[in-house]
Amino acid sequence: MLHPADDGSARHSPVSAVVLSGGDVDCIAGLLSLRESQPLSIYAGDHVRAILGGNQIFRVLDHKIVNFWSLPMTQETKLRDAEGTELGLSVQAFAVPGKIPLYQETSDDLRDLASTSAVIGLSITGPQSKRLVYIPGCAEVTDAVLRQIDRADLLFFDGTLWQDDEMIRAGTGRKTGRRMGHMSISGEDGSMAALAGATVGKKIFIHINNTNPILCEDSPQAAAVRAAGWDIAFDGMEFRL
Amino acid sequence: MLHPADDGSARHSPVSAVVLSGGDVDCIAGLLSLRESQPLSIYAGDHVRAILGGNQIFRVLDHKIVNFWSLPMTQETKLRDAEGTELGLSVQAFAVPGKIPLYQETSDDLRDLASTSAVIGLSITGPQSKRLVYIPGCAEVTDAVLRQIDRADLLFFDGTLWQDDEMIRAGTGRKTGRRMGHMSISGEDGSMAALAGATVGKKIFIHINNTNPILCEDSPQAAAVRAAGWDIAFDGMEFRL
Repeated sequence: MLHPADDGSARHSPVSAVVLSGGDVDCIAGLLSLRESQPLSIYAGDHVRAILGGNQIFRVLDHKIVNFWSLPMTQETKLRDAEGTELGLSVQAFAVPGKIPLYQETSDDLRDLASTSAVIGLSITGPQSKRLVYIPGCAEVTDAVLRQIDRADLLFFDGTLWQDDEMIRAGTGRKTGRRMGHMSISGEDGSMAALAGATVGKKIFIHINNTNPILCEDSPQAAAVRAAGWDIAFDGMEFRL
Repeated sequence: MLHPADDGSARHSPVSAVVLSGGDVDCIAGLLSLRESQPLSIYAGDHVRAILGGNQIFRVLDHKIVNFWSLPMTQETKLRDAEGTELGLSVQAFAVPGKIPLYQETSDDLRDLASTSAVIGLSITGPQSKRLVYIPGCAEVTDAVLRQIDRADLLFFDGTLWQDDEMIRAGTGRKTGRRMGHMSISGEDGSMAALAGATVGKKIFIHINNTNPILCEDSPQAAAVRAAGWDIAFDGMEFRL
């Protein structure tokens, strides 16, 4: 969430507000790099706020200048900077099937790991009522998820794996995608099939693991994804809605 | 600590071992980026091991493949990779005057914050018995610190601030260097004066805050530092001993 104004201070980060979609390391560790005495708003659901509040290292986020806001699932929230000024964007969080963060796991039983509050998607609406839906991790496209996606102008969706056992085959991991809370792109129960009928302006696979063959531009998997109307995210990609 | 061998696996980090000199965010947060299922040795003193062990997020470092070694202050430790193979380097940790990490602070009283075990320096010896002394944070150059530095081939020393109230003057912070556990470079009780008589091959200021005028190449402060026989670290600097 970039704020255009430069306050002229000696140290400046253009980030006015951060909305956290989960408590995994890749969602929250970046906060440790935003600790340098600059005002910041942090929006997070109860599960993630509990993680941050209960973890001593996140005390480096000085509560005198960092404003922690709740992110209710039941209503649209107008985003504000740390001083309370509206940023012109509103966010609606919604539950997405997923699992608790890896470091919170105490069992290997998927039933214990599933969570209805640990993983959320975000529906973000800007000044021209254009809407972005952001779902970086998703274990299953339920009817509730489909309703959130419906008529979005832009969809960012979990593109972690092409197929469930891909990391095991590549020798880079011992877990299936399902075990990690990620559905795959391909297959009858994959995200391409599940979202084939979705009415969305533009669909982009994001959060792509380095074992996923869609990262190779000339792969048949990349071609299949494009043929199904998806774009593949890359570093530095920009959009304007 | 880079290891030359490439094990040919699909994911590879050249880092075989990490030696932690403190528990501050800038010392330990990088571990969260080394969590991807690769063997790794981590060496740390008791204080830092307690921090890592007591903080849930560091559970992403899988104990099945990440080997945590103790770093005793009383003896030289031969560094090994996660499988126990010697890396050809030995490390001797020594206590340095400093303070506990910011996020562990519960008072503003410097006496409570001072610690004899939270901050360490490292004396690292390679195959040709060349020796590097690494002290990224230091509140005072004591006789014990001087003895460790004596006859090092290369010294990396805490160059955070030029003068104690520099961050307050620049409007980037509310704390003095002393309050943060850092002595300044300049002044009668500064590090330049304290280390003027040290017998060291090469002296480099590292860990330089962005308010420190020695970062401006043409500043009188940079000239003063160079005239006193110091070099000023920069990104990508390399040494061969």
